[in-house]
Amino acid sequence: MSELRKDPVTGRWVIISTERRKRATDFSLESVTVTPDDACPFCEGHEYMTPRELLALRDGTPANTPGWTLRVVPNQFPVLRVEGSLDRQGEGLFDKMNGLGAHEVIIESPRHEDTLATLPDEGIEQVLWAFRERIHDLKRDQRFRYVVAFKNHGAAAGASQAHSHSQLIALPIVPREVRDEVDGAKKHFKAKERCVFCDIVRQEEQDDKRMIAGNADMVAIAPYAPRFPSETWILPRRHQSRFEDAPRHEYASLATLLGDILRRMNRMLETPPYNLLVHSAPLVEEAAEFYHWHVEIIPKLTKVAGFEWATGFYLNPTSPEEAAQVLKSAHGSRA
Amino acid sequence: MSELRKDPVTGRWVIISTERRKRATDFSLESVTVTPDDACPFCEGHEYMTPRELLALRDGTPANTPGWTLRVVPNQFPVLRVEGSLDRQGEGLFDKMNGLGAHEVIIESPRHEDTLATLPDEGIEQVLWAFRERIHDLKRDQRFRYVVAFKNHGAAAGASQAHSHSQLIALPIVPREVRDEVDGAKKHFKAKERCVFCDIVRQEEQDDKRMIAGNADMVAIAPYAPRFPSETWILPRRHQSRFEDAPRHEYASLATLLGDILRRMNRMLETPPYNLLVHSAPLVEEAAEFYHWHVEIIPKLTKVAGFEWATGFYLNPTSPEEAAQVLKSAHGSRA
Repeated sequence: MSELRKDPVTGRWVIISTERRKRATDFSLESVTVTPDDACPFCEGHEYMTPRELLALRDGTPANTPGWTLRVVPNQFPVLRVEGSLDRQGEGLFDKMNGLGAHEVIIESPRHEDTLATLPDEGIEQVLWAFRERIHDLKRDQRFRYVVAFKNHGAAAGASQAHSHSQLIALPIVPREVRDEVDGAKKHFKAKERCVFCDIVRQEEQDDKRMIAGNADMVAIAPYAPRFPSETWILPRRHQSRFEDAPRHEYASLATLLGDILRRMNRMLETPPYNLLVHSAPLVEEAAEFYHWHVEIIPKLTKVAGFEWATGFYLNPTSPEEAAQVLKSAHGSRA
Repeated sequence: MSELRKDPVTGRWVIISTERRKRATDFSLESVTVTPDDACPFCEGHEYMTPRELLALRDGTPANTPGWTLRVVPNQFPVLRVEGSLDRQGEGLFDKMNGLGAHEVIIESPRHEDTLATLPDEGIEQVLWAFRERIHDLKRDQRFRYVVAFKNHGAAAGASQAHSHSQLIALPIVPREVRDEVDGAKKHFKAKERCVFCDIVRQEEQDDKRMIAGNADMVAIAPYAPRFPSETWILPRRHQSRFEDAPRHEYASLATLLGDILRRMNRMLETPPYNLLVHSAPLVEEAAEFYHWHVEIIPKLTKVAGFEWATGFYLNPTSPEEAAQVLKSAHGSRA
């Protein structure tokens, strides 16, 4: 029989459908392949094709020239812009404001064929470091309430450029999913005086049914009530509400585990498209006691259809216990 | 400059992105084409390939034989099942219950090539009538709290069968999106002593910027803060919380307007895949004063990516004013 499971943070229910059971490896997948592209604006030597860089890791070369390992540039087609004021307005029943914000692109490597999974651990750590640096800088703008750091890998996951990159969007409001997660964590803390994410890490380590891998600082688990097959969360063992305030060694540990997990997924799920999301506390709210930053990785294996749009109720044909088993048994080595 | 707009019911913000502006007709579309299939379980003469029918419109022929215009059957691979009990359980931090519910399929025509857009108005009305009949029957089961009626048209919108069909899923809990909408409508009613959907219909008729079409009982609008390009809502003019309690002439009016809108979409958006959702009040809650049933149609034109999953914040490159203009200017006739 199928099961209804409740996410302990947001209270969101999902259906783990055994009737439509699919093993983690059963999906017809759109494997991501990256082919060379002379017109790629993110390749080394094409710096003139992007807006001027905000941040780069360079070996002494001048800005906006070759000789870098990572670059951060404003998005050429930003969804939100830094210039102007919010200008909140009503239109009868309706409310709107100007599209104030920031939209940046982290170019993760000068080489077109690299992916986060094939970069050395230091390369992944540089990407996390760039998230951190840019979030601290964006935070100084008092108009922003939240910065989303995320990655779309592969066209099926929404990537419009094949060259490996991540994005940052600074928003003038705290978005709804974040609100739900923060409010859920606060409720748990009020009831139990414990962080719900710390509780999750503790129970998952005890149960050992949904643990995938871990190291001194980080654990990777299949969450109890995943929306999607092979959805994976990486959480720091140490309680901390903000990604951007983590100590340096945690970025190194996260980089190692993240690369490991992505290579396991490539091996077992045929180099799937995926979305990667950093969840962190809102910029201007006190959430130190009850919120706990983490990373979510969602391989794009299924289509979201009418039922999900109508209900916000996700239908997942793969149990997290089985998904965890598949990734646990895989090797995450580069060889 | 882009705009942030707030949905007046749920409070959900969307970004209407002018930088990435796309006209309603600019998307690269996966047009839905239906090709004959001898193995289709929904075609007339193949009644033995489905579970036994729960409801049918027949000209005196025996159940589960040819001679029908519409059939309702249990889903062969149900996401939830009627048998058993809920059996709520805790597992430490986690909560689960058995996958109790019902999952039915409405086969909308005996002919493989028909679609909702090409059926005569009476054929569409029969589908709405079948939703109504089945919801009333499912309601008698006290374990159910909500029935979702929806349609996935085309593989890209999640349809696994090409033959035109809709689905009903009865759930033992009120799902999250419904909860948000009902709570939002209740809040508006408490503040203003008016139904928020009645207010929307009134303002849209006055503004006339997002009106697409209408008749004596129904209006079709592009909502003020749509998540998706060319998202369209059809609302009854008369306040009523439950779809299944509408008077007969409203189903006839809805059928006429729905067919009209689907044909306009076919003409202007190149026969797009789409999801259709009926929003109605929860089965066991008193929402008569403040909730207002309606239908949402979401053409599947864009991909949902990391940003949306991380934030619940939708990015829409087409303004509803322009989308409404495109559909308004189109003819919805069958010719």
